[in-house]
Amino acid sequence: MTLVGGVETGGSWCVCAVGSCAGEIVARQRLATTSPEETLAAIIDFFKQAPPVARIGVGSFGPVDLDPRSPTWGYVMATPKPGWEHASVARGLEQALDVKVSFETDVAAAAIGERRWGAGRGTGSLAYMTVGTGIGVGLLLGQEPWHGISHPEVGHVRVPHDRARDPFAGTCPYHGDCLEGLACGPALAARWGRPAEQLQADHPAWELEAEYLAAGLANLVFTVAPERIILGGGVLAAPGLLALVRARLEALLGGYIQSPLLAPGLERYLVAPALGDDAGVLGAIALACQHGEPENRSAPGLTR
Amino acid sequence: MTLVGGVETGGSWCVCAVGSCAGEIVARQRLATTSPEETLAAIIDFFKQAPPVARIGVGSFGPVDLDPRSPTWGYVMATPKPGWEHASVARGLEQALDVKVSFETDVAAAAIGERRWGAGRGTGSLAYMTVGTGIGVGLLLGQEPWHGISHPEVGHVRVPHDRARDPFAGTCPYHGDCLEGLACGPALAARWGRPAEQLQADHPAWELEAEYLAAGLANLVFTVAPERIILGGGVLAAPGLLALVRARLEALLGGYIQSPLLAPGLERYLVAPALGDDAGVLGAIALACQHGEPENRSAPGLTR
Repeated sequence: MTLVGGVETGGSWCVCAVGSCAGEIVARQRLATTSPEETLAAIIDFFKQAPPVARIGVGSFGPVDLDPRSPTWGYVMATPKPGWEHASVARGLEQALDVKVSFETDVAAAAIGERRWGAGRGTGSLAYMTVGTGIGVGLLLGQEPWHGISHPEVGHVRVPHDRARDPFAGTCPYHGDCLEGLACGPALAARWGRPAEQLQADHPAWELEAEYLAAGLANLVFTVAPERIILGGGVLAAPGLLALVRARLEALLGGYIQSPLLAPGLERYLVAPALGDDAGVLGAIALACQHGEPENRSAPGLTR
Repeated sequence: MTLVGGVETGGSWCVCAVGSCAGEIVARQRLATTSPEETLAAIIDFFKQAPPVARIGVGSFGPVDLDPRSPTWGYVMATPKPGWEHASVARGLEQALDVKVSFETDVAAAAIGERRWGAGRGTGSLAYMTVGTGIGVGLLLGQEPWHGISHPEVGHVRVPHDRARDPFAGTCPYHGDCLEGLACGPALAARWGRPAEQLQADHPAWELEAEYLAAGLANLVFTVAPERIILGGGVLAAPGLLALVRARLEALLGGYIQSPLLAPGLERYLVAPALGDDAGVLGAIALACQHGEPENRSAPGLTR
């Protein structure tokens, strides 16, 4: 059985694992994300002691440089996280471990994992949106994650914001009231004066949250019309929120796009993730598996 | 010299042409768009009398069915245009003329033409937005136009709408104040009480128009981040409007996406079309050329 490695790098924690392309994890470790040097050394240490792997997939917090022709490929770019701006992640792993590294955003890796083993099975195109500390989207348009001159930054789209109803100015340091500024976890906490998980199910926060998320999702549907959308992240743990977003999204689409995949209720179109807490690292493993398969090694659009 | 055919079907007029894959038009005719039967018969008649063609490209007003597995491939779908709902365009041409037809939206064909001969040369990904009677977008993400469960319907995205500043409710019969409802030509005319071409260059209409268009374009950049965007259509004939949209788009992006292609001023990022009045039919010819080239005949994502 060929084994591959997966690394999920997050703002607070990194998860490293070794697993099979059937989705079985045989070794794993969670590390605190400290300085890039220290964190990278700990990841390398894990893989030196773990069973040998044929390839490593990395799903990284962003923004990241994904252009294989760029000298900063595999770097974290302009992040507010101290010490991580222009930190090299992928090349250091490749050199220290003498193994090919496939490098993607955390959300793109999660999308690949969900398509391989989870809620995205059987789709030709798939969007994965996570709503937590920020709002991120991974877009699979065909086999590989889509990147243009940047990976998707759908969290930063502008959505209608009725300041008479919601005078909250938004938390995004770049854009104020973009989607992320209005609807990420910290925005909920700042608007209502307590963390999202302390807001009751009947709190008006959720109707408003559903409206913003649905507006962002409707724009995604009108732009790339993926076959399915997976909506996850800590904020979606709120009971009933997914159903509210579905209802609002259906209203916003207004019946304009006709497809059997948009059956009334959107219950099979807008779905929860299926891989739970393991989505990140399983996504990184799935990324390594996808890029390691012989038929994909020369595929156009393959990151490396 | 191999010749191909191009057909641009529009709400009022259709243009048929025969040309080369160097972009030279050797025969052309403009026909009124009447009933589907009469219009199709006139198109067939044109090609029967014109020099023989190896393939025909059609760029059609939408919405259209572009799924090659669908029994209604090549049909116009739920259009408000009388008589055209569920009108078969492509198959009728194929049968009557015994020639392969490549079928696309008008905006996708225009994008292909602009990439081959016009303002999109050299791009790996390209968006073409037209602002006229409606707002349409063609997206080339790689070689072929992107379609998910639908072709892009970017005209129908929601954008911020400050009703205190602009109480106009929007003209979209499906969504009211979506981008198209706020910013298409008829919306301008309805809001200000006279046609767009009669609004002076210093009229406040243009600042507002630029804001809506820039919001829609910013969302497109944050979602698919194309290498270039071409912005055309009748409304963009207004002097100075393109420059206003560039300035507003740059402000909305807020420096968040870092790319040398987004150089200050966006003058090489957001550009006017180069093919002028011929864009539609040249796009249809370019579509036929692209699909007729041996290396593309078996390309994944090729419509037919």
